[in-house]
Amino acid sequence: MKLLEERIIKDGVLKEGGVLKVDSFLNHQMDIELINEIGKEFLRLFKHKNITKILTVEASGIGIACITAQYFGVPVVFAKKAQSKNLDGEIYTTEVHSFTHNKDYTIRVSKKFITSEDRVLVIDDFLANGKALIGLMEILKQAGATLAGCGICIEKGFQNGGDYIRGMGIDLQSLAIVDLNEKGELIFR
Amino acid sequence: MKLLEERIIKDGVLKEGGVLKVDSFLNHQMDIELINEIGKEFLRLFKHKNITKILTVEASGIGIACITAQYFGVPVVFAKKAQSKNLDGEIYTTEVHSFTHNKDYTIRVSKKFITSEDRVLVIDDFLANGKALIGLMEILKQAGATLAGCGICIEKGFQNGGDYIRGMGIDLQSLAIVDLNEKGELIFR
Repeated sequence: MKLLEERIIKDGVLKEGGVLKVDSFLNHQMDIELINEIGKEFLRLFKHKNITKILTVEASGIGIACITAQYFGVPVVFAKKAQSKNLDGEIYTTEVHSFTHNKDYTIRVSKKFITSEDRVLVIDDFLANGKALIGLMEILKQAGATLAGCGICIEKGFQNGGDYIRGMGIDLQSLAIVDLNEKGELIFR
Repeated sequence: MKLLEERIIKDGVLKEGGVLKVDSFLNHQMDIELINEIGKEFLRLFKHKNITKILTVEASGIGIACITAQYFGVPVVFAKKAQSKNLDGEIYTTEVHSFTHNKDYTIRVSKKFITSEDRVLVIDDFLANGKALIGLMEILKQAGATLAGCGICIEKGFQNGGDYIRGMGIDLQSLAIVDLNEKGELIFR
């Protein structure tokens, strides 16, 4: 997606260790106009998939999922990371390792909100090693729901999550795939 | 807001200890059509305030803030709860006590994204004791930004956050204020 690639070039900051900061427009401050264009692009890519629900995980995915859901006319469900008084009853859970925060955490989704009838589009801001996405896929498997596709804003091509998930035959669409050239500079695939 | 009150009556669940669960439409599964109506109502209430930015805190506030921001044509900034490799540089921080999760946590906002030029609308899903809102207000104070108003979806009138914040002279608008009658049943103020 040209608009997103241009924005990454303009405002993204590449830090040591392959950390790409896009916090001025995507995951701390959020440019809502850009995210609307992202939502339209996800609709173009997945509109033939009869999506019934969008699933993401807190926190950075939520805004993108909500804006995107307007174009599909479906509800959003976001997996929770924290144990909460507000999350009781029957829940799906799975463990996820975060490299960003360098710890394991449990994600939880109430069984009421994802069922075997659902055709689910999974949305997230970033795909690197793919651990969060695999956790969400595990929850869909527990629910017996259909994973209709995965829509990612920025995929780090130099980490292995995207290859691994596509290798499972999943319809994974990333709007920008960033790689590093031999000088360690950012390029798009 | 009639539509939200009706939805709370239809789908909200009152649990022991004054816990009101609205996870089927507001803060776990999200009804995006309803949240669009909420966004329009916030515009009606705050459109004369020359808002330049919407501030919320992860996680449940983010989707509501993003949908609302479309009507104002401004960016969203969400305060982060977790320490992250992605959050470096100069940051505003403050401590918040969560009764829902029964712990203290630090919220963080990069100094780049809130400045003394900003007129900020603070948005959140719930207001109970007001600790999260007071934390966000503390960050705006550190930034020298103007707090133009606070927009809350559901205020628990039987806790003291709303009274306390209105007592400070702040333009706090809650779309539904729930109270408990002498039988412990939900009523709207």
